[in-house]
Amino acid sequence: MSLFRGIKYFLLSDNSKQKTLRQVLGFYPKNFTLYDQAFTHKSVVNDNVESDKVSNERLEFLGDAILGSIIAEYFFQKFPFEDEGFLTKIRSKLVSRNFLNQLSVDIGLDTFLETSANLNRSKSIYGDAFEALIGAIYLDKGYDLCRKFVVQKIIKDYVDIDELLATETNFKSKLIEHTQSKKISYKFQTVAVETGSMKFFKCELYVEHAEPIIGEGNSKKRAEQEAARLFFEKF
Amino acid sequence: MSLFRGIKYFLLSDNSKQKTLRQVLGFYPKNFTLYDQAFTHKSVVNDNVESDKVSNERLEFLGDAILGSIIAEYFFQKFPFEDEGFLTKIRSKLVSRNFLNQLSVDIGLDTFLETSANLNRSKSIYGDAFEALIGAIYLDKGYDLCRKFVVQKIIKDYVDIDELLATETNFKSKLIEHTQSKKISYKFQTVAVETGSMKFFKCELYVEHAEPIIGEGNSKKRAEQEAARLFFEKF
Repeated sequence: MSLFRGIKYFLLSDNSKQKTLRQVLGFYPKNFTLYDQAFTHKSVVNDNVESDKVSNERLEFLGDAILGSIIAEYFFQKFPFEDEGFLTKIRSKLVSRNFLNQLSVDIGLDTFLETSANLNRSKSIYGDAFEALIGAIYLDKGYDLCRKFVVQKIIKDYVDIDELLATETNFKSKLIEHTQSKKISYKFQTVAVETGSMKFFKCELYVEHAEPIIGEGNSKKRAEQEAARLFFEKF
Repeated sequence: MSLFRGIKYFLLSDNSKQKTLRQVLGFYPKNFTLYDQAFTHKSVVNDNVESDKVSNERLEFLGDAILGSIIAEYFFQKFPFEDEGFLTKIRSKLVSRNFLNQLSVDIGLDTFLETSANLNRSKSIYGDAFEALIGAIYLDKGYDLCRKFVVQKIIKDYVDIDELLATETNFKSKLIEHTQSKKISYKFQTVAVETGSMKFFKCELYVEHAEPIIGEGNSKKRAEQEAARLFFEKF
């Protein structure tokens, strides 16, 4: 059963909302208004001008940053011997729109959300709601409890780090597959750059119909991976 | 006098380092190794293979995320009636490479850094060191004290929010200046979009030699500002 159990939160009475939150979050929330706001998509507010509801967009802004910190520290501690390039990449994978959307559905948070938007068009509203929830927890209970919730309730049960790692290093093969399926050409051109005491590798990636991409890294392989990763980020 | 007083930290004895940090940070650090690491540029480590020094790159990764959170919350609380678009823009201004580099020099942190890099080429090492310091403080003393340091010691004395706000809204004029100086043409083309109950403005910005940029906002002006901002972010 998923953490949030597919409950239609926004239809519950205040009393049931409070019980549900307590069970799901594993702590006693104080300011329930914040959670109501986290689960309110802007479409509900826009549809009803006279409503006193507030949408989750500001909480999403805050939660996005808090989640970014928590995930950064999680990987910082988990991989003490990996460099910042590795940490940046694996973090960006976990906080990506796609991953967070899927995660929100996996934990069953999707049914908590009150929305009148066309869900086929905007699946990212689930990931946004997850970030808004993190913002609400942070404001309600502080950084340490928020971190504990993310690490113990979310990452532990719903994130497969090995799978993240496996997909994380495959940008070059992903690019090769992509170009083959689209029948477009590509070229990696990598050179070593030395400036004074610094040495690094610079990879220029040319994909047909796209602007050139430059990736850098402390090995040829890393520079190419970085260029391929940037290609997917951009296009 | 600047906060960090132009002290050549890395030349001090351990005892003097501890006294200096106490005075500058306003609290008693526990793990001094973290601060030594924050002030060690990778060039010092790369130049000396036998050195047991660790560079500040991993701490910079962590500090970048922590700083992003602290600044996000700072603006979230300071501007309770602004939307997430406004908050995103003003935050990205404060955590930009340029701003952090200048800030690090303003607070006198530049002389704390041990480096053998060519400083004319890589001014961003100062901003990086500032982020690494934030990472060190976070690991040493936790989130709340780290936030207090940033808000009370840095933002209060060294960040002019009004100036940030003023520069923040000028992307369109910046674009016009830019295109005039480069003698290239540009065109803003803005339309109102209505889908069901949602209404917003969509601005297509065409700048000669560049891919078209699309900005969105809840007014024509905001959509154009957003497109111009994205242009500078991209090129």
